[in-house]
Amino acid sequence: MKPSLAQGTRDFGAEVVAKRNYIIQIIRKHFELYGFSPLETPAFENLETLTGKYGEEGDKLMFKILNNGLERPEKHQKSRDEFEEVLQGKSKKGITERALRYDLTIPFARYVAMQAGHLNFPFKRYQIQPVWRADKPQRGRYREFYQCDADIVGSNSLFNESELLQLYADVFQDLKIPVDICINNRMILSDLAVKCGDIHLLTPMTVAIDKLDKIGMNGVMTELQAKGFQESARQCISEFLELSKLPVHEIAPGLVQFFGEETKGIQDIKQFIALEIPGVRIDLTLARGLNYYTGTIIEVKPIGVQMGSLGGGGRYDNLTELFDLPGISGVGISFGLDRIYDVLEETNGFPSTIQSGPQVMLVNFGPSFESANRSILQRLRQEGISCEMYPESIKADKQLKYANKRNIPFVILIGENELKDHTITIKNFQTGLQESFPENEFISSVQSVIISKL
Amino acid sequence: MKPSLAQGTRDFGAEVVAKRNYIIQIIRKHFELYGFSPLETPAFENLETLTGKYGEEGDKLMFKILNNGLERPEKHQKSRDEFEEVLQGKSKKGITERALRYDLTIPFARYVAMQAGHLNFPFKRYQIQPVWRADKPQRGRYREFYQCDADIVGSNSLFNESELLQLYADVFQDLKIPVDICINNRMILSDLAVKCGDIHLLTPMTVAIDKLDKIGMNGVMTELQAKGFQESARQCISEFLELSKLPVHEIAPGLVQFFGEETKGIQDIKQFIALEIPGVRIDLTLARGLNYYTGTIIEVKPIGVQMGSLGGGGRYDNLTELFDLPGISGVGISFGLDRIYDVLEETNGFPSTIQSGPQVMLVNFGPSFESANRSILQRLRQEGISCEMYPESIKADKQLKYANKRNIPFVILIGENELKDHTITIKNFQTGLQESFPENEFISSVQSVIISKL
Repeated sequence: MKPSLAQGTRDFGAEVVAKRNYIIQIIRKHFELYGFSPLETPAFENLETLTGKYGEEGDKLMFKILNNGLERPEKHQKSRDEFEEVLQGKSKKGITERALRYDLTIPFARYVAMQAGHLNFPFKRYQIQPVWRADKPQRGRYREFYQCDADIVGSNSLFNESELLQLYADVFQDLKIPVDICINNRMILSDLAVKCGDIHLLTPMTVAIDKLDKIGMNGVMTELQAKGFQESARQCISEFLELSKLPVHEIAPGLVQFFGEETKGIQDIKQFIALEIPGVRIDLTLARGLNYYTGTIIEVKPIGVQMGSLGGGGRYDNLTELFDLPGISGVGISFGLDRIYDVLEETNGFPSTIQSGPQVMLVNFGPSFESANRSILQRLRQEGISCEMYPESIKADKQLKYANKRNIPFVILIGENELKDHTITIKNFQTGLQESFPENEFISSVQSVIISKL
Repeated sequence: MKPSLAQGTRDFGAEVVAKRNYIIQIIRKHFELYGFSPLETPAFENLETLTGKYGEEGDKLMFKILNNGLERPEKHQKSRDEFEEVLQGKSKKGITERALRYDLTIPFARYVAMQAGHLNFPFKRYQIQPVWRADKPQRGRYREFYQCDADIVGSNSLFNESELLQLYADVFQDLKIPVDICINNRMILSDLAVKCGDIHLLTPMTVAIDKLDKIGMNGVMTELQAKGFQESARQCISEFLELSKLPVHEIAPGLVQFFGEETKGIQDIKQFIALEIPGVRIDLTLARGLNYYTGTIIEVKPIGVQMGSLGGGGRYDNLTELFDLPGISGVGISFGLDRIYDVLEETNGFPSTIQSGPQVMLVNFGPSFESANRSILQRLRQEGISCEMYPESIKADKQLKYANKRNIPFVILIGENELKDHTITIKNFQTGLQESFPENEFISSVQSVIISKL
């Protein structure tokens, strides 16, 4: 049998795990610095918890778990009988009662609804876990991928938005990825729809506006016309979009003039701009999830790299309404781990110090040297230096080849001379240099050699 | 709709995540110090990768994923038609083609078999990921739980076993859990079966011996008799088990005398005892997985706590044989995260310094203080101190109550006096003391206060 991966999934070897962890550690560090506490929810939920929460498409792409005992209906009569019941609509349980996590928001909402009596609101949680979707696999789209979310629920204060914007700025600065942190406000878009004639125009309007980047102003206007927008409405939307081109400090005044008053949406967005958080800018074309967000919306776009957004979020009115707990509003953001990874790969942005294997290998010269090697290993590990001895005493050059292939930067050799002279020999693979040190000084020598290399 | 967790699964809130991460970080740190590199495999595998690898019971308890589009046969004709095909045995795909990871060993074997051409042998990997089993949920048994494995494959050297024994000792010393690291060798048990009359006695014999802890010597003898072991065979096994009671350095000589020669199994075990790794002791009653292990077997048992094993492992002959890649032998160990967690809870063994939320909260006295508070937040975070401001300017005592409930140890107050005098006031929740510091000294003050508290 030739083994293979399930379609759309990936193995992550040592180097990739180390690079992914580098990103995750930075995101986690800032989540915690900002006072968010970790939450982990199970990989699968009861089907009814997830069904209907992601639209028809979501229900279709959710991975459902087959109830146990049903897997071989063609072979087992019991499983066959249960199937017949389902087919006849007689079964209560059906054939599936569980599904894999599709995002982190609904499990979070389920958690808040279940724990509401015990939680301290405002409640701040972060969650970094994989989710699964049965999308058609294609380049850059996987059936298993990580989401990294932070949310504050139970507070309407705009201070929360400002903290999340600052958090975005801090994380991408730490990752050394230049980004635009684009903000908009759903209330402004609603006001625009009303100004164009009807609040019901909001959805088709934002769908068209959302494409401005790709199809340009003419394209947007053509789409609006096709959707039945009148000349006057199209004119109004076009004027609005033109405002986006203004210098940052002229956009809010432009909006006030356009709407004839300083609406709540404009007030909010002005506050965030006034904070002068690096990278934050108004993008009036930003629409995002059409039905979910109700206030501020945020999207992070890399500068100088052709790549979709690296994160996004916004304010929503009702996190837990679907679980019979109304009135829990909140604001949240998300990081796209895979895209951030791709940007760092493409721009050589990973630090060269990321280490995915041991720093030191000891060459194995046979049983009579083992005891000396063991004590070296122990002392190195006590100093936090990861190391190993080659497990077999094969020819030294084969052992060195192994260390080199594994990118282990340093090799320690303790042969007869070293044992006699109480020295150790260190070979640096990068420089090719080989040096001997007195045994009682070798730890500090190894440390200084390793540090100078980093 | 009243939300609930899927049966047998758990949410992990902030405090539990922090404690679990404390354990995982220690295990991971030592895996890396010993030169193991991380591997992550997908949550689900192709069904044929997993089927038949865990016995009949495993096939039954594996969570299978329903092929998409089949979920509502009672409603949709297309899904109904596909079912009919399956029921008639006409479908190639069946209704499920994927299953959730059941352990970390088979995915590891699948990875090694797929990547064999690119890997450097000996290959050392560690893997810390959840697995899923449809066991009947009960106290301490969950349907989602973590495994923490480390394996070295492609080397027969006993040095690998000795490293893993030392690794076990280091991890449990670091966790401050006193343990016995019990070792035995399958070859010794095979030799015993032969001495008792037939190698085929091995399985029923080890099944009985394995119960010595629970049913005592008489119980074992009764079981052996029931299984048809002759008087002479029972006498032989009883003598063998008596050897287990000898002082550690007399066991090997006792075995040599018992078998009439120093067999390979005895030689191996003698080597490990000679290393005097803390906690390692011979346990001749240790049997473990009957068909998988072929050499050394290891099990870690906590001392002074009534709890099953905290980890185990051993040497096996053929990791990837089932994937058409013969000759890859190896040795591995595993840590039981949930049990280690339970031991630390039961013995109050978690350090009090584990922090699951922010260290500092700033009281919100309204918009005119926000700018001062923002700059404090930023400076604290730059120093790595996690902090937040309460997002709404409600009454101070309500804010303090929130901080107290969340176990935030310090609160900073910047009111009118502080703003005027360029000071900040820090309230320590543990001592109840409140102290003012000059604003330009506050970082070092906060740090010294926080550090003195830890």
